[in-house]
Amino acid sequence: MKAEIISVGTELLLGHVINSDAALVARELAACGIDLAHAQVVGDNSQRLAQALAESATRCDIIITTGGLGPTKDDLTKETVATFTNRRLVRDESAFAALQEYFGEREMTENQLKQALVPCGATVFANPHGTAPGMAVPFGEGKFVILLPGPPRELEPMLATGLRPFLQKLEHKIIVSTMVKTFGIGEGAAAEKLGELLMGANPTVAPYASGGEMFVKITAKADDEAEARALLEPVAGIIRNRLGDVVYGCDVPSLEHVVVKLLLEKKQSVATAESCTGGLLAKRITDQPGASEIFGLGLVVYSNEAKKKLLNVPEGVLRQYGAVSPQVAKILAENVCALAGATWGIGITGIAGPGGGTPEKPVGLVYLAVASEEGSLSGILRPQGRYLGREWVRSRAASLALDMLRRQLLGLPQAAVF
Amino acid sequence: MKAEIISVGTELLLGHVINSDAALVARELAACGIDLAHAQVVGDNSQRLAQALAESATRCDIIITTGGLGPTKDDLTKETVATFTNRRLVRDESAFAALQEYFGEREMTENQLKQALVPCGATVFANPHGTAPGMAVPFGEGKFVILLPGPPRELEPMLATGLRPFLQKLEHKIIVSTMVKTFGIGEGAAAEKLGELLMGANPTVAPYASGGEMFVKITAKADDEAEARALLEPVAGIIRNRLGDVVYGCDVPSLEHVVVKLLLEKKQSVATAESCTGGLLAKRITDQPGASEIFGLGLVVYSNEAKKKLLNVPEGVLRQYGAVSPQVAKILAENVCALAGATWGIGITGIAGPGGGTPEKPVGLVYLAVASEEGSLSGILRPQGRYLGREWVRSRAASLALDMLRRQLLGLPQAAVF
Repeated sequence: MKAEIISVGTELLLGHVINSDAALVARELAACGIDLAHAQVVGDNSQRLAQALAESATRCDIIITTGGLGPTKDDLTKETVATFTNRRLVRDESAFAALQEYFGEREMTENQLKQALVPCGATVFANPHGTAPGMAVPFGEGKFVILLPGPPRELEPMLATGLRPFLQKLEHKIIVSTMVKTFGIGEGAAAEKLGELLMGANPTVAPYASGGEMFVKITAKADDEAEARALLEPVAGIIRNRLGDVVYGCDVPSLEHVVVKLLLEKKQSVATAESCTGGLLAKRITDQPGASEIFGLGLVVYSNEAKKKLLNVPEGVLRQYGAVSPQVAKILAENVCALAGATWGIGITGIAGPGGGTPEKPVGLVYLAVASEEGSLSGILRPQGRYLGREWVRSRAASLALDMLRRQLLGLPQAAVF
Repeated sequence: MKAEIISVGTELLLGHVINSDAALVARELAACGIDLAHAQVVGDNSQRLAQALAESATRCDIIITTGGLGPTKDDLTKETVATFTNRRLVRDESAFAALQEYFGEREMTENQLKQALVPCGATVFANPHGTAPGMAVPFGEGKFVILLPGPPRELEPMLATGLRPFLQKLEHKIIVSTMVKTFGIGEGAAAEKLGELLMGANPTVAPYASGGEMFVKITAKADDEAEARALLEPVAGIIRNRLGDVVYGCDVPSLEHVVVKLLLEKKQSVATAESCTGGLLAKRITDQPGASEIFGLGLVVYSNEAKKKLLNVPEGVLRQYGAVSPQVAKILAENVCALAGATWGIGITGIAGPGGGTPEKPVGLVYLAVASEEGSLSGILRPQGRYLGREWVRSRAASLALDMLRRQLLGLPQAAVF
């Protein structure tokens, strides 16, 4: 069974609103095992919507519209679909009762009353979060146009309570997918390792880059979940194997999430001393709810004064090696670890740019250290090719720090060079 | 001139990614005065993309694609457009040089080299934030397919540096726009103050919310820049006037940029002591190049231990008022200011959630203080309506801290309540 989405709303074509509805519906269709091959956006314009409906109808079995169900003159979806399916608009008593309940003592205008009208023969989906019900209107041979409200807080609950039960009656395919997340390998290099797997049809395998990391999405489709998983899991296993220990997790929210979870499991803690990342590492750790159990103290020692005063970096070391040096990274890591009484200390010092670089210490050079009672470990982020900006350098440095700690916590070898 | 967008990416049809690219491009087209009548999404599928191109070509003059320009086998947009426009792929020397610079000493795979190929006769848009250039490929009579990269951090800058100048040449019109940025007013309240200005056609005035802030975009179109500015500037002046001191700048990158600039001008400095924001405030200050001149030290005193040890918060105060209290915020601000020898100290303590709330101190409650030699000043962020998540609370708190400092630096009254 094939579906298409038609999102209705001039505000989408003006870029005032991001089309999050389409993603919500797409995810629901995938979960129901229905292929979404195409999606489109039209403005609040009955003629263009009619055209879009006619085009979609030649290609699919289920057309899902979002938006244009409200009480204003701009809202034309229901009327257009009634004409398209050649059905009269009639009052739906359940929708009318819901409207009466919503408005209580207040009087309804004619526009508001319009919201109880549905194309004759439609299946109505109740909308407990607004006044416009959803509906499925049959057309052709076993095809449907399904109309859903535009506001995400009305749409999202209706996906589970209206759309899903309706679709499950029609179709029993299940799609299951998994996301393999990596740090330390590029999209191109990953694609080469994945090779022929990228050509597979079921499961499909798609790599993509995301903020200095690389994800691989694997998606399988079958009659039931067990069968889909049986298709998916062997391929996911091969991919994890080929990519090796750059994989930090499957279906996990983020690298910091993985690190915080490992620390919680081991009942260990971490403290941070950041120079060039300026608090980004502490921020990413404390993005995780419950971080207070594994993180008590982070220092942003941006100036040399602060490095000396708070973390006892000797004046002589700063003079001999400079603030951006492996020696300083190590002292930061060791001393913040001791100051906080943490299991692990992380030190980061570097040149985020755009200014401040020299021939020996170019912009993009970052030294990192991870310290514990057992000693400390160094990492370097070297500038590679073109300077991609301050945010990129800082983000990569914080990620590398997290990945170094992840590898220590798991007893993995440290990645060779960055 | 009419345009259509074709977003390319199976991840969009699976709902893994929200199509923010389409909104970015739509906004740029609106600013350039080009009608966007239709937008569609297709998967990473050459045949479907070819169909979509053929359909769009019958309806519009400019087709803009996003996505599918990367180095992997999934990335088929360029090849499909080359076939559609009946043009050979040839190596573009500027794109090749940029690739070489990007990769530096590292070897390029064949896939990566592919990114320097463009359909013969295309105008190339440089991509300083990634490896895939954008391009405009002519077809038919004066029509173009314009290919833009999918990752928003590559796409967004290319809209200003590649797409806009290209479209202006086609239209022979100059578009000038300005963005009034505010903190401390909602979109609805702003719309009421802007009133009839929102209905204007030239300049257009469009408010939109962005991460807890509210921006107003004003766009004028004319034959030359002077004429466009003459249309724009009086309206921009009226808008700044009506919105008042919630406006923190026009065409400025961010609130933190404004605050860092003010501190640089006054040769003053700031130090931060953060609990619930966990380094986010320090991170935002040090996002600014040159921040080292006004920022030397930030502390993330997440645990009570750290608050006592590093900033001498008395045990008795913690016991009597709790860590989340105006008293603790004030001590954090004052003591970090003294410790760093800074002009200003900022203290933040609150409950970012989702856990940790109580009836007296609900999730979302944050106390802030800004201290200087002259004394200290308190701010409160109270939970309003539904809990919008940890990130929202932390982000609003860091923004309020920056806005409090901005108002102090400018001698403005502090905003009443949040």
